[in-house]
Amino acid sequence: MNLILSRDTQVKIMENTVTNAEKYFGKFCSLMAAYTRKTAKLRDKSDLLVKQLIDYGNTENPELRTTVKNFAEELAKVQDYRQAEVERLEMKVVEPLKMYGIVIKQTRAEIKKFNKARNNEIKQLEKLEKIRQKSPSDRQLISQAESQVHKATVDASRSTQQLEETIDEFQKQKLKDIQKIFLDFVTVEMVFHAKALEVYSNAFQTLESYDVEKDLEDFRAKIHITSGTFHETRPVTATSQSTALPWSTQSIQSTLQKLTLVESGEESEEDQLEDLRGAEYTQIRRVTSRTT
Amino acid sequence: MNLILSRDTQVKIMENTVTNAEKYFGKFCSLMAAYTRKTAKLRDKSDLLVKQLIDYGNTENPELRTTVKNFAEELAKVQDYRQAEVERLEMKVVEPLKMYGIVIKQTRAEIKKFNKARNNEIKQLEKLEKIRQKSPSDRQLISQAESQVHKATVDASRSTQQLEETIDEFQKQKLKDIQKIFLDFVTVEMVFHAKALEVYSNAFQTLESYDVEKDLEDFRAKIHITSGTFHETRPVTATSQSTALPWSTQSIQSTLQKLTLVESGEESEEDQLEDLRGAEYTQIRRVTSRTT
Repeated sequence: MNLILSRDTQVKIMENTVTNAEKYFGKFCSLMAAYTRKTAKLRDKSDLLVKQLIDYGNTENPELRTTVKNFAEELAKVQDYRQAEVERLEMKVVEPLKMYGIVIKQTRAEIKKFNKARNNEIKQLEKLEKIRQKSPSDRQLISQAESQVHKATVDASRSTQQLEETIDEFQKQKLKDIQKIFLDFVTVEMVFHAKALEVYSNAFQTLESYDVEKDLEDFRAKIHITSGTFHETRPVTATSQSTALPWSTQSIQSTLQKLTLVESGEESEEDQLEDLRGAEYTQIRRVTSRTT
Repeated sequence: MNLILSRDTQVKIMENTVTNAEKYFGKFCSLMAAYTRKTAKLRDKSDLLVKQLIDYGNTENPELRTTVKNFAEELAKVQDYRQAEVERLEMKVVEPLKMYGIVIKQTRAEIKKFNKARNNEIKQLEKLEKIRQKSPSDRQLISQAESQVHKATVDASRSTQQLEETIDEFQKQKLKDIQKIFLDFVTVEMVFHAKALEVYSNAFQTLESYDVEKDLEDFRAKIHITSGTFHETRPVTATSQSTALPWSTQSIQSTLQKLTLVESGEESEEDQLEDLRGAEYTQIRRVTSRTT
């Protein structure tokens, strides 16, 4: 009969099961936490991009301004979904994996309890064996030792049964949890990818419908407003060279004076732009608040 | 007439256009590069997860082993798509944004050339003004200065025209490029999200079809193989206590000896597992090779 041997093999399997779960669930936990952190960093970079896009849009012509602003808003939406992804990964993947530390500790305590009972059983058996060899005729002493062995065996048996139940429950829960945790991981990822795909489809249409020509006309009008007439009135013919030139002393003076005026005028236009940016920032603050 | 003033305003707009593009394209470039790097890090973490999943699968019962292995393969596929995403972002977004450094440098040189010609024109005008005040009757000197002004004006005019063309081309290209670069960004992201969604759908089915009960039966059979009979044969009744106990001196001895044998047996089983893992690693090397 191999009672102690079988129990020993059994407990070895149980110990391996727990040790293995501890090892891999620990690794999965730290890797999933790292994956979540990297996702959060990707969100942070995207938030900065959204902020710069809105900044930039405000410096551009109306068509591009609207396009860039709308694109930035779509990009911000993707980050909101990424933020939800991060929170769900934390809650549905990282946390349940962390919980395994506690479950494993409890199961280890159960195994320890069993090992103690088993060791006592072996000790009593060895004691009985010694008595049998030294005093084979001392019936009373042998009977006493046998009684001790019996008690230890009953104890070990009870402990074994408890351990079996614990480990059975542990394994059942572990298998179910692995399935659940990774299913949750996949679900969280699928939801994010589906939402991102949807939002990027809108962003694509926003960008595609941008009318480059319209902005270009605006820009051309802006840089040609004065130079357009300037080209026509400019007397660059050789014949007019010796005759009266289109500059008078007065006009040169006033022109040189105005050069400084133009520069200060440019500055106040920039101030107006700053005010506009300020208004846009209130919308963006929602995005940046979660990064700080 | 405000010829110089208008040209000054014009060049101011042009300079602002280039400076603004330099500022924001530079920011977009570094942010997109950072976004790409963070994506690559997410891929790295996922690759490690794939590796650990395959490792873990090899320590589990057949059903879970197959499930985890298949899931790991799907996860590896997502990382292959993420790798493609990283490469495309580099090529279609980061590189074109980098290229703007060169375009901006060229446009700046054109503006500098114009400024030089414009400054010379102002200088000649000032010279003419001085002569007119000092020697209003010296027709020859005035005529000479007027000729210099004319030359400088023709030069500035030619330079202005060139600058206008350059800046027009720059702006046109810039607007088109912004549209193209962000459209490419959105397209790269859409392709990735669509592919990830597809692969995760398969992964979901793989995990969902996992049969926990089957593995649990295997596990129960494993830990009860000996203990099953052991429960039935165990004499834990109070009446059998004083009668013959089921242990003989011999059985105890052999049992105690076997305890060590069991342990060495466990070790060789682990060696076999190591061999199995080795085979799986060749497949995984493909994944890890790109991270080192």
